[in-house]
Amino acid sequence: MTMHYAPPLRDFAFVLDEVLQAPQVLRALPAHAEIDGDLMMQVLEEAGRFAADVVAPLNGIGDREGCRFKNGTVTTPPGFERAYAQFCAGGWPALACAPEHGGQGLPHVLDCALYEMLSAANHGWTMYPGLLHGAYACLAAHGSAALQARYLDKIASGEWLATMCLTEAQAGSDLGQLRTRAVPQDDGSYRLSGDKIFISGGEHDLTPNIVHLVLARLPDAPAGSKGLSLFLAPRVLDDGSRNGVHCTGIEHKMGIHGSATCSLHFEQAQAWLVGEAGRGLAAMFVMMNAARLHVGAQGLGLAEAAYQRASAYARERRQSRAPGSSGNDLIVHHPAVQKLLMEQRCRIEGARLLTCWAGLLLDLAEHDPEAALRSRHHERLEFITPVIKAFLTDQGFQCASRALQVFGGHGYVVETGIEQFMRDARITMIYEGTNEIQAIDFLMRKVLGDEGRRLDDFLGLVRADIAEASGLGEQARLLGEAVDKLRIFASRIAAAAAQAPALPYYVADEMLRLCGHVALGWMWLRAGRRALSAMAQDPLWYGGKRDAACYHFAFVFAEVQQLSSVIEACLATGLPPLPTDLDHHAAQEAS
Amino acid sequence: MTMHYAPPLRDFAFVLDEVLQAPQVLRALPAHAEIDGDLMMQVLEEAGRFAADVVAPLNGIGDREGCRFKNGTVTTPPGFERAYAQFCAGGWPALACAPEHGGQGLPHVLDCALYEMLSAANHGWTMYPGLLHGAYACLAAHGSAALQARYLDKIASGEWLATMCLTEAQAGSDLGQLRTRAVPQDDGSYRLSGDKIFISGGEHDLTPNIVHLVLARLPDAPAGSKGLSLFLAPRVLDDGSRNGVHCTGIEHKMGIHGSATCSLHFEQAQAWLVGEAGRGLAAMFVMMNAARLHVGAQGLGLAEAAYQRASAYARERRQSRAPGSSGNDLIVHHPAVQKLLMEQRCRIEGARLLTCWAGLLLDLAEHDPEAALRSRHHERLEFITPVIKAFLTDQGFQCASRALQVFGGHGYVVETGIEQFMRDARITMIYEGTNEIQAIDFLMRKVLGDEGRRLDDFLGLVRADIAEASGLGEQARLLGEAVDKLRIFASRIAAAAAQAPALPYYVADEMLRLCGHVALGWMWLRAGRRALSAMAQDPLWYGGKRDAACYHFAFVFAEVQQLSSVIEACLATGLPPLPTDLDHHAAQEAS
Repeated sequence: MTMHYAPPLRDFAFVLDEVLQAPQVLRALPAHAEIDGDLMMQVLEEAGRFAADVVAPLNGIGDREGCRFKNGTVTTPPGFERAYAQFCAGGWPALACAPEHGGQGLPHVLDCALYEMLSAANHGWTMYPGLLHGAYACLAAHGSAALQARYLDKIASGEWLATMCLTEAQAGSDLGQLRTRAVPQDDGSYRLSGDKIFISGGEHDLTPNIVHLVLARLPDAPAGSKGLSLFLAPRVLDDGSRNGVHCTGIEHKMGIHGSATCSLHFEQAQAWLVGEAGRGLAAMFVMMNAARLHVGAQGLGLAEAAYQRASAYARERRQSRAPGSSGNDLIVHHPAVQKLLMEQRCRIEGARLLTCWAGLLLDLAEHDPEAALRSRHHERLEFITPVIKAFLTDQGFQCASRALQVFGGHGYVVETGIEQFMRDARITMIYEGTNEIQAIDFLMRKVLGDEGRRLDDFLGLVRADIAEASGLGEQARLLGEAVDKLRIFASRIAAAAAQAPALPYYVADEMLRLCGHVALGWMWLRAGRRALSAMAQDPLWYGGKRDAACYHFAFVFAEVQQLSSVIEACLATGLPPLPTDLDHHAAQEAS
Repeated sequence: MTMHYAPPLRDFAFVLDEVLQAPQVLRALPAHAEIDGDLMMQVLEEAGRFAADVVAPLNGIGDREGCRFKNGTVTTPPGFERAYAQFCAGGWPALACAPEHGGQGLPHVLDCALYEMLSAANHGWTMYPGLLHGAYACLAAHGSAALQARYLDKIASGEWLATMCLTEAQAGSDLGQLRTRAVPQDDGSYRLSGDKIFISGGEHDLTPNIVHLVLARLPDAPAGSKGLSLFLAPRVLDDGSRNGVHCTGIEHKMGIHGSATCSLHFEQAQAWLVGEAGRGLAAMFVMMNAARLHVGAQGLGLAEAAYQRASAYARERRQSRAPGSSGNDLIVHHPAVQKLLMEQRCRIEGARLLTCWAGLLLDLAEHDPEAALRSRHHERLEFITPVIKAFLTDQGFQCASRALQVFGGHGYVVETGIEQFMRDARITMIYEGTNEIQAIDFLMRKVLGDEGRRLDDFLGLVRADIAEASGLGEQARLLGEAVDKLRIFASRIAAAAAQAPALPYYVADEMLRLCGHVALGWMWLRAGRRALSAMAQDPLWYGGKRDAACYHFAFVFAEVQQLSSVIEACLATGLPPLPTDLDHHAAQEAS
């Protein structure tokens, strides 16, 4: 059985070229006037080769050996440093960075695809460069000219890696409780003091310097999240001396053992303000949003990698007689295994379409010549970001678990190599804002926050494709029903919230997942229609795609019924009462 | 935060005494004429104390240290041996064994509750005694008088542990492919030769002898599963010499590190036939069915243990403002966390009712004075066994994952102690027949196999409770709809199978889960009504129970809509076509 990761290049070509028509979309932007499909595929082929040949072989050893912490230093697993050097030598960190900062200026959508493949190949390793683009975007948007001059090139080249220092022991989802202090100095810099936890890549041996982006509080800052400012504190100062940032330990985790999750102690660390004082959260959110899209791509990548192994195993393992057969069949011919595999395939290929669509939005939001359109693309991206983060990581974990199931008892054995994907995938549902936080962000801010304007814009795109009368009529009808439900629920929730302000919070998760199914269904409708129209070119390949589209609507999409039923019940009869020990008001009255 | 396991004694009293009226049911059996509620609760209190005080403290160390294999011997984690000695000294192995073999003759339902608590406390440790009852039942039913005399007392007392040796490398789900050979000897014994894998407790240091129950093939046996016979091969022979059974290694697994999963090499091992030649599978199934109920209880126990920790953490961790509040609230007052907890609570408490109901069936099937009733209870038990195994272990894993989610980033850290439950729980979906195999067993054998007779019997019980007009009308209506759907689907699937014999296999999983929801909904209807009627006694406790019943039907039960939608679509329009690379017939034609 081949256990190597095979970059899904054929599917990328289908997604980018045939369904999303990325080359045409990009060529309309002056910044990407020279992009064509061949160039995009060449980049992806090379990226895939790097992921498969350099990074994937280190996935098992990264899990087994993990990172080591000793006297404040972190040693990454064998091979990680060399692979990272090759990554930089290949120019991969700079892929989508601007040419004026040493970047290649290629579209973001290729960066999304690159990170899907890297995460599939080795999630732990990919955590290190994973924050580069976010840090780059954050500094490019909010850093002073002096900071940009000192740091942007180093980040774009990957010479220095970056971190995002948010969490403290008492402040996880609630950043308003951060305590790290920043004291202004006469030279215009600041001194940071405090303790951060769960800092990915907070310390390591891959680069000589690490650029920490740190949320902290100025002396006169108000309490809560409005008092937060963003600072840049490098591990090593310009004069080569060590800054006051020290790693005090690394976590033992369920998975991503290759990634160093550090506790950092800041003690009078020299730092510089990024953006305006008191606007740290807004500046950090540039980084956070990029990170959330990446996390969605991680969910997808891990699911793809696990699926490839399960699919290969199902094609070589023989057990029992399949229905209608007489012999000892490959398990891929057993309906139960086929369902496990198809459930994965549908979710994965739908997710790839969705992340690439979001990647294109990033390019459009940055480079569309019309400011009004840039802003619209940006809003679309903001709308879909929590859906991509939460829905795709939930799926990624479930897909990895299904892939494990295909192996039966062998799947539970470490050496088989499949259980690592499930352990690694589990963190994606938590970090960069838990999936519960994503659901609240989605419903409260992105849907109810502007009275459904962004939702209407998104559903308008979906409806336009539903209205196109070209095949898959039943699937289009199902999708249309879900679109209508989602829209009506949004209005009814807004109305009900006037009387019961807590109600939206109890259906936020269902609303996000409903939107996730609409988004995936939309993508499968487009993919299925493209398959129908191209059938003659390659009946086997496009036939498989059409069949997967049909399977998606018959099996996967049915969750829409469950979600609708829950939301409908809550709207029709109000929330069911909660046991008193969970009840907030009862607790308040008692206290 | 308390991280100790607290035996759910109040809920056991509710389940056994108040809802299932176990004391009355049992007292009607001559074998249990002296049982009363107080006695049952005394036993459970003691069992709970043992689980919480002796076994639970070893759960973390069992995971960290695991078992060690060296030169054919297995060393269990520190403390395991001592705890097992205490287990035997307390008479726990013999709880439900017959007094004539040194057993205590207590009802099986108490044994189910005991194993829920043991699994919650320490799943890895519990794997060792977990097979005792199955081995006991199998020998009691099929062993010769000589074998019973030599082994039954030793097993009932726990002095010797037992294994179930089925799987071989080429034969997992497909036992028909087993190759281990049994050659008859002049003295009436046999010599076994072959290699078994995935044998839980195949070797360890807890008992001086291990009783292996082994499926093997006689020289003249036909191919396939009809050629299998069951043998008993002890590790140590009566003369004290070592038998030809050797442990060749143990697996490195995702979880249950405390349990030794062994490869066993049988080389001319002396063995004795259990039951008739060629009827090995039937004899083994006595053990297997008991094991499957236990596995369901494991899923429940692991979910309960994880839930207790998540619930405690949610009551001490403060983050952010809850809707309608002004301060920094306990996360238990956040709707998203409440939903995570309620989803767990509903599934757990429903599962406890269902496993205890099945435990009572085991007692009735064994001790009802009327043969016809014994047989009916036995059939009910057979009907519900695959549902309990698959539905409750799927739930157990998902609940453990939700419990982890409550901890946010801390949940992913090993030292927090929550991620172990998720890793441990994952195996329950695989062993003793994968959940996919359970679904096939359920639909093909238990539902379609007798033209819905056993299904009708079960649904008759549910309908009788629905018809009882005492509160929770809306919930009863929802349950009634699901009952009708399940019944109609069964008929339509049977009819459709005449034309499309493979069709049932594609909806087997959905049918099992639909039945699982009917069973859980039934239990919650009964629990909710009992809560309503007892409200005055303890408004807080019974109010919480009633609220949980309502929550269950509003949120958890909604999956019925998803499942129905899938089955309906497959019945109405036929199965969606599968991509050619999965298609059995296409593969046959191509070959």
